[in-house]
Amino acid sequence: MPNFIETYHCRTGTVNPNSYPVSSVDELYKCLEQATEAHDSGALLDIRVRTNFLNELHEQIVARKEDLYNLYERETSLSRSRFETEFERTLNQLRLYRDAASALEQERTESVLTDRIITKKPLPVGPVAVFGASNFPLAYSTLGGDVMGAFAAGCPVIVKGHPFHAGTSLLSSEIIRGTLSKLNLHPGIFGHVLDDGHRIGQALVQDERIKGCGFTGSFEGGMALYRIAQNRKEPIPFFAEMGSLNPVVILPNTENLNSHLHALVDSITTDAGQFCTKPGIIFCPSALIEETIQTMNARFNQAPTQPMLHPTIQQRYEMRLNEIQSTNAGEFYLKIDQEFSVPHGFMHTLNRELNHFETLSHEVFGPFCLLVEYDDIKRLESTLSALKGQLTTTIIGKNPEQSTLFNLACNIAGRVILSGVPTGVAVIPEMHHGGPYPASSDSRFTAVGEASILRFVRYVSVQKSHGT
Amino acid sequence: MPNFIETYHCRTGTVNPNSYPVSSVDELYKCLEQATEAHDSGALLDIRVRTNFLNELHEQIVARKEDLYNLYERETSLSRSRFETEFERTLNQLRLYRDAASALEQERTESVLTDRIITKKPLPVGPVAVFGASNFPLAYSTLGGDVMGAFAAGCPVIVKGHPFHAGTSLLSSEIIRGTLSKLNLHPGIFGHVLDDGHRIGQALVQDERIKGCGFTGSFEGGMALYRIAQNRKEPIPFFAEMGSLNPVVILPNTENLNSHLHALVDSITTDAGQFCTKPGIIFCPSALIEETIQTMNARFNQAPTQPMLHPTIQQRYEMRLNEIQSTNAGEFYLKIDQEFSVPHGFMHTLNRELNHFETLSHEVFGPFCLLVEYDDIKRLESTLSALKGQLTTTIIGKNPEQSTLFNLACNIAGRVILSGVPTGVAVIPEMHHGGPYPASSDSRFTAVGEASILRFVRYVSVQKSHGT
Repeated sequence: MPNFIETYHCRTGTVNPNSYPVSSVDELYKCLEQATEAHDSGALLDIRVRTNFLNELHEQIVARKEDLYNLYERETSLSRSRFETEFERTLNQLRLYRDAASALEQERTESVLTDRIITKKPLPVGPVAVFGASNFPLAYSTLGGDVMGAFAAGCPVIVKGHPFHAGTSLLSSEIIRGTLSKLNLHPGIFGHVLDDGHRIGQALVQDERIKGCGFTGSFEGGMALYRIAQNRKEPIPFFAEMGSLNPVVILPNTENLNSHLHALVDSITTDAGQFCTKPGIIFCPSALIEETIQTMNARFNQAPTQPMLHPTIQQRYEMRLNEIQSTNAGEFYLKIDQEFSVPHGFMHTLNRELNHFETLSHEVFGPFCLLVEYDDIKRLESTLSALKGQLTTTIIGKNPEQSTLFNLACNIAGRVILSGVPTGVAVIPEMHHGGPYPASSDSRFTAVGEASILRFVRYVSVQKSHGT
Repeated sequence: MPNFIETYHCRTGTVNPNSYPVSSVDELYKCLEQATEAHDSGALLDIRVRTNFLNELHEQIVARKEDLYNLYERETSLSRSRFETEFERTLNQLRLYRDAASALEQERTESVLTDRIITKKPLPVGPVAVFGASNFPLAYSTLGGDVMGAFAAGCPVIVKGHPFHAGTSLLSSEIIRGTLSKLNLHPGIFGHVLDDGHRIGQALVQDERIKGCGFTGSFEGGMALYRIAQNRKEPIPFFAEMGSLNPVVILPNTENLNSHLHALVDSITTDAGQFCTKPGIIFCPSALIEETIQTMNARFNQAPTQPMLHPTIQQRYEMRLNEIQSTNAGEFYLKIDQEFSVPHGFMHTLNRELNHFETLSHEVFGPFCLLVEYDDIKRLESTLSALKGQLTTTIIGKNPEQSTLFNLACNIAGRVILSGVPTGVAVIPEMHHGGPYPASSDSRFTAVGEASILRFVRYVSVQKSHGT
């Protein structure tokens, strides 16, 4: 008998009625065998087949929107408007990556040399494993960017569905399989497995038939799988997006401080701060600290506290808050106002405390940030350098691009925001969602934007002699 | 006292007069410290600085051409004409990668959203380690593609010079250092170390200050360093080009068989077959086997045998010939006609023998190939699949692109050649020099052509609010 996965409705603190069986190793191996067959037979090699598949999939997703919403709401407690935004992004990504694949295909040039003609064409790397995020059950999960990027590149995909939204993931899987079946495409193009631990996910990455991997999640989870992938007989491209502190620096010359602080607090409290780009640490000059504390505290107090996505996430958040509180490194400003919600707020501390307590420089996933007072910009620069790779770094103030921090921010982050907030990752060609290690496992690639399909594309040169 | 490295003139079997000290760990750490300083200070960040540096380096290389030739000839025994070809390729690569970096810089687009403007810009990954090839002392060594690609991307480079041409490598280093000094550029932009074993090279890749690596050489060497790089606290992009069998299939419908066979034998004997793209295994239909054996044997007999680059390479070649001979899997056609040269030729064997003797499917670096007789194209296809990743695969015959082997060839190789020979890697935009593992460590990247600089480029998005 398999184990079963239960999901939760966190706004009411109840277990949802349906539960879902954990996949067996045999089921996994069947997916792997079929994915290999699909790849070897070139099932998605023809760009017209790929485009057609993605177009039909788009229609099927739209047709099942309300079914998706029902499971999504039940498994995440997220709002309808958040669902709408994420649903739109899911479709937008599908269309963007479909078009990017066509553009890549059409880029084909040739060099005519005296004795030969050489062209270069993109090919899929092979069957890809995808580990979706807990916090985006649509846009970074089974119907999400990594899956659509791999499909657009022509790769079969096997998804390890996230157990926190197992129902949404299974319905997504059903939609993809239905589309394949309707179009008479090879069923090995898509596989789906569920796991309540690490066994199936590890076996998936360990298997030599998998030729690439996309992961969104924690540093620990991402690196454990990365190490497995790299220590296989044949190592493979493995892109992991592993979260970030997302430092924000307020410069002494900042105008309209209050409106910046309001935007930052809103960015921290929205959907209980469960975003990989949530501002986790705000550096504020001593001269502005009193005003900043008051303004932030008031804004946090205005916002209603929220439930988190899953009891496990909530427990981890509360544990992290305890770890940080136990340092006694500063004063806490926390508030909670509703049942089944978690406290939100910040801790005011000093720049030098960051050196004393390592725990302060690790991500807290949830609606909390550190407010770090600094009095010396040089010392702040060395603090920022020590924080290592980040998804984003934000500089707020007048002429932030001319500050000496700008080059430093570019060195440590995948995206640099000038007088804005880091949440809200636009799906556009210029988006780089990744960054130096440990924000991602490979700073050259992005998880969002057209270039994200390049994680799953290899090239072959084809050389003909004249007259061949 | 350090150990010293000696080099050899293989055409006369003599040790060259100069010897070169092995670098100490302290010297390596000084290079690493300086490279980090150069990177952090943005020494090559400005594209104009980079272009100017590469232009001046070009001039300096041209100015020292005869000095380079004198050492090159002494350390490799290669001909003047081979030197000329390689020297031209070295300069050609430098110019191409310089221009590719400028083009990348100019590609900058922006997306204007309702609340923000986002651009994306290329940045260097950081200090890069380069391990050059023994068989290209200029074009894939200290003045070679990996170094120029990393410079073009804006990265400081530390080269572990190949001990077989230590003098050429040191002179190359002197030319680069002289250029930096003339232009008053940061000396940390280039570092050079020498080693007679693996200690310094391993310490280089192990060091957390290195952020990327380019390697050209053997499978064993490449993978040993790859594993070190991936098991560091911070794993890094590591591109290794590790050689290949380069299968050639002669189709039953081949016309002008003799001229194809002559071209293949010439490709095997030129410079004693010391090319990573040398044809290592030729599949020939039974119907054409007698003619093929006679023609190949005659052509091998016409060509004078050659010395190899280094006594170590020669010993390895002779050891591999012995291993293959000891299988008794077929008849040898070998010839040797000069002192200080190695035998060249082929072994005629049957397709089924490849399954019995694993040693037959490993590269023999030198002027030798297997001639494998096949009678069934389906069985040949499964043999080819089993050979795994290749730098190149060649199909000779009428309409090779329409043969069922074409898709298979694209699946296993980085470059597919139709009715030609695999040697002669053109430095053009369409060149893909890499291929599925184990031909390279990452099938998405190439070691040759403009795209090769992408191995060393990361991106950052810069997001401004309107009015910032």
